[in-house]
Amino acid sequence: MSFDHRKYAPFPTIDKPDRQWPSKRIEKAPLWAAVDLRDGNQALIKPMSVAQKKRFFKLLVELGYKEIEVGFPSASQIDYDFCRALIEEDLVPDDVHIQVLSQARQELIERTFESLKGAKKAVVHIYNATSPTFREQVFNVDKEGCKAIAVKSAEWVRDAAAKQPDTEWSFQYSPETFSATETDFAIEVIDAVNEVWRPDQGQRVIINLPATVEVSTPNVFADQVELVHENIRYREHVLISVHTHDDRGCGVAAAELAVMAGADRVEGTLLGNGERTGNMDLVTAGMNLYAQGIDPEIDFSRMKEIRALVEEITEIDTHPRHPYAGDLVFTAFSGSHQDAIRKCLARYTPGDIWRVAYLPIDPHDLGRRYEEVVRINSQSGKGGVAHVLERDFGISLPRWLQQELAMVVQQDAEEDGGEITGERIHRRFNGDYLNVPAGWTLRSYDLHRADDGVRARISVGDEEGATVDVEGRGEGAMGALVDALNRRHGWQIRVEAFDEYSLGDNTEANAMACVRVQVGEQVQSAVALAADTTAAALQAILSAAGRVAASEAEQPARARA
Amino acid sequence: MSFDHRKYAPFPTIDKPDRQWPSKRIEKAPLWAAVDLRDGNQALIKPMSVAQKKRFFKLLVELGYKEIEVGFPSASQIDYDFCRALIEEDLVPDDVHIQVLSQARQELIERTFESLKGAKKAVVHIYNATSPTFREQVFNVDKEGCKAIAVKSAEWVRDAAAKQPDTEWSFQYSPETFSATETDFAIEVIDAVNEVWRPDQGQRVIINLPATVEVSTPNVFADQVELVHENIRYREHVLISVHTHDDRGCGVAAAELAVMAGADRVEGTLLGNGERTGNMDLVTAGMNLYAQGIDPEIDFSRMKEIRALVEEITEIDTHPRHPYAGDLVFTAFSGSHQDAIRKCLARYTPGDIWRVAYLPIDPHDLGRRYEEVVRINSQSGKGGVAHVLERDFGISLPRWLQQELAMVVQQDAEEDGGEITGERIHRRFNGDYLNVPAGWTLRSYDLHRADDGVRARISVGDEEGATVDVEGRGEGAMGALVDALNRRHGWQIRVEAFDEYSLGDNTEANAMACVRVQVGEQVQSAVALAADTTAAALQAILSAAGRVAASEAEQPARARA
Repeated sequence: MSFDHRKYAPFPTIDKPDRQWPSKRIEKAPLWAAVDLRDGNQALIKPMSVAQKKRFFKLLVELGYKEIEVGFPSASQIDYDFCRALIEEDLVPDDVHIQVLSQARQELIERTFESLKGAKKAVVHIYNATSPTFREQVFNVDKEGCKAIAVKSAEWVRDAAAKQPDTEWSFQYSPETFSATETDFAIEVIDAVNEVWRPDQGQRVIINLPATVEVSTPNVFADQVELVHENIRYREHVLISVHTHDDRGCGVAAAELAVMAGADRVEGTLLGNGERTGNMDLVTAGMNLYAQGIDPEIDFSRMKEIRALVEEITEIDTHPRHPYAGDLVFTAFSGSHQDAIRKCLARYTPGDIWRVAYLPIDPHDLGRRYEEVVRINSQSGKGGVAHVLERDFGISLPRWLQQELAMVVQQDAEEDGGEITGERIHRRFNGDYLNVPAGWTLRSYDLHRADDGVRARISVGDEEGATVDVEGRGEGAMGALVDALNRRHGWQIRVEAFDEYSLGDNTEANAMACVRVQVGEQVQSAVALAADTTAAALQAILSAAGRVAASEAEQPARARA
Repeated sequence: MSFDHRKYAPFPTIDKPDRQWPSKRIEKAPLWAAVDLRDGNQALIKPMSVAQKKRFFKLLVELGYKEIEVGFPSASQIDYDFCRALIEEDLVPDDVHIQVLSQARQELIERTFESLKGAKKAVVHIYNATSPTFREQVFNVDKEGCKAIAVKSAEWVRDAAAKQPDTEWSFQYSPETFSATETDFAIEVIDAVNEVWRPDQGQRVIINLPATVEVSTPNVFADQVELVHENIRYREHVLISVHTHDDRGCGVAAAELAVMAGADRVEGTLLGNGERTGNMDLVTAGMNLYAQGIDPEIDFSRMKEIRALVEEITEIDTHPRHPYAGDLVFTAFSGSHQDAIRKCLARYTPGDIWRVAYLPIDPHDLGRRYEEVVRINSQSGKGGVAHVLERDFGISLPRWLQQELAMVVQQDAEEDGGEITGERIHRRFNGDYLNVPAGWTLRSYDLHRADDGVRARISVGDEEGATVDVEGRGEGAMGALVDALNRRHGWQIRVEAFDEYSLGDNTEANAMACVRVQVGEQVQSAVALAADTTAAALQAILSAAGRVAASEAEQPARARA
């Protein structure tokens, strides 16, 4: 049987009962390093051209990234040419560090420095893998040999930099596969490298800790980072950086816990592009801070541009459920969710602290819209239906009518099996409630109020101009109409529900009335729009009564058939 | 400015210096609950039909899930019908619990129980939201009112279940929005519910803790779960379940840390389908255990079927970088990665503990292939090129020749900007190395070994049958041929590198020789296949010499032009 867990060994946990990070919180943005143009680029079926790299670099700078890994110039001519273009065309702002990766070999390091001639601020990033798998299976070196490679490369970097003193150099060392390396050995190698670079004497040094492959739950990575943070020499002079991947789906979590554990800097890519499962996603990590009220120092309001460029270069669509960026992440289908969102949005005023159910952030911040929040299908309740009518047609309904309408919409959706558009809800609403039944149009009314109530004479007509006048008495106009209809038709109308709204004054219809009446076994509802509240109320009663009459006319006909 | 972090408040951390979970590890699979047919279904533009639900349920059962939430029968006719079909058509194995969700309202709970009539084992899952946002903005209830809703519903559930005693009932309560609720209040509500249900008296009870919206780093959720684990009454009689979402991209991490913090059960969906950013992904969480040597108790070897069904019902493609399941997750582009993978794969024998660089698991386990590991583009080094030749054409090259070939392939890739196919590498290899230059074909050889070495007479010909015989002396056959060529052409051939392999005996060519020669300024390499090792070695020398001659012939011609 090939599916057999016994061929895998568990990753050892770290015995560190005095760990501090679980009580910490992130209170400011780490220094972000965008590695899209190097690590991200290595994962592309079609690597970026120099022109594409220029556009990507420009966007990263505009978003606010201050450390940008631009390539692997000793391994790729395109990357070399791109470094030259950045420098010679003066495309790097003064406060931005460009960073390049090099393997730990002398000729490659020299070629790397050559690619950076004339740079203002540059990070030379060297690495060698330090884990047992690599030492034993890939490089066939022991621990001393592995450390010697790192030290030797650190010397080459130091010496090559000394020959180009006009550049403000940062040196970066990655014990590649750090998370799979014995932490005490990683610290030993880091210390040895720092003995060459001497960050205490003013050299800017970045120690980057990669989870080259994610091999454990994210808390173990945080423990490892905290051990480095607490134990390396010259700690106060060194930037600790982390570089996580997403093999276990926890790359962002690992980076966040690592920052709590002492990391100063986080490497990643926009939307997580990278080999295999991808790199730590700078968008998610940055927006996670933002959603906690912490300035990410990156302008994610340009999310559409970010998505467009990443999709262009990766030739992969953004997943519709990608945190913060996906098409569906501000969309709620289920009725109770829609209802809660609607209530919270109604209470929210700009300037308030954002507290909206199911929406961790305001979609507007990312150039998205509330309109995207609600879709209606058979799982949606009254809230969703009401929201769509309000949003798309400016129609507010009383709760009892929302329920009624939601029921018919849900039946439509279940018969149909798919999404119900706002249009379709509107048509249902018009057909079932707002349309005036033929022969039940309010033409005019005369109301006479005396001590014993209201006497009304109401003229009802059809499209052809034929009219019928009815007369009745009641507590008010509606009561008088009900009385008139009862007399004429032999009914006992009971008004079960009535709500009236005055609408904005920029419409012809200034009032909307909603009514539900019961006549015998029948319950009918209707909605009417009219220029004044009385006319709206009377028309609503007439429409409901018209539906009762139509239904009565139908039933005997059926019985006869 | 709309992009302004100040409108968000940070989520409070938990003050719990005695937390235990960071020192724990997951040692066995939690009880998994698959909520695809309910929570997942609510997120679909086109919700599942009864027929689709049946197919999905069948797959979940076959994979090994024992608790399956099948719908929201009081809110959807399709879900009601599906429950009836499961029961009446006897589709639920005896060891599987079907679970249904209901809002905390009496008529809905009664309808829910109606849908389950005749079930063998069923979980009735009720919920009400307990967070301040919901209490204050959505429901307008105080804490007591909120708790009363939960208690009342618990009573309805208890009483309704008593009327259907033939079913083995589990009761599940979710304080919805648990992660945004004051933990002490959540515990108070849970205790109140358990006072109704009395798990200590034999009732099976699940307390499900949802991160309905992910609002904090995953360690905070673990702290919250640990507080519940340590403080609820009847803890030993209750299953603690977690239900996380992915709003901050950390849904799997939160569930994993929660299991370390005491949770017994994890709810999620296959590939994380669910509203907004989706639910906790059962595939990633399960495979994360598997990759640590822990039996997930689910058969993920059927990954292709899982993907196909999820893609069909969601109408969303699986992201190529989705952990364990995406098309690209077992693919490495960069040269050093390819090199390391190749070395480790060469050493791996079935039965060993899996320790392969960059591949956290063996792709075979999921029905994937090693062949997918390597693609070649301008970022690939010698390792990738060598791997493709070996994999696709069975050709192993010595290291020096890998480097040469990789350089030309990389030039091709840079000119081209895209991926280089195995075919193209093979054509390059044939054209530059294996092809025999015209007029340099070994026809026959006579070797005479004496005390002073080997004397050789070698017959070289072209396609038309014209031959030239050359004679020379040397330490061996190759040395004699070099001597012969030197005499004839006035060269000083230096053999810089030579490797020979005998090939499998099922091919016509039983030997492959690779040679690099230097003549003056020129360096030329060649590879030859032949029936015996001597012929291969001689042909390789001849081919390389032929390239030297061709190049020499070209240069004077150029000089004349």
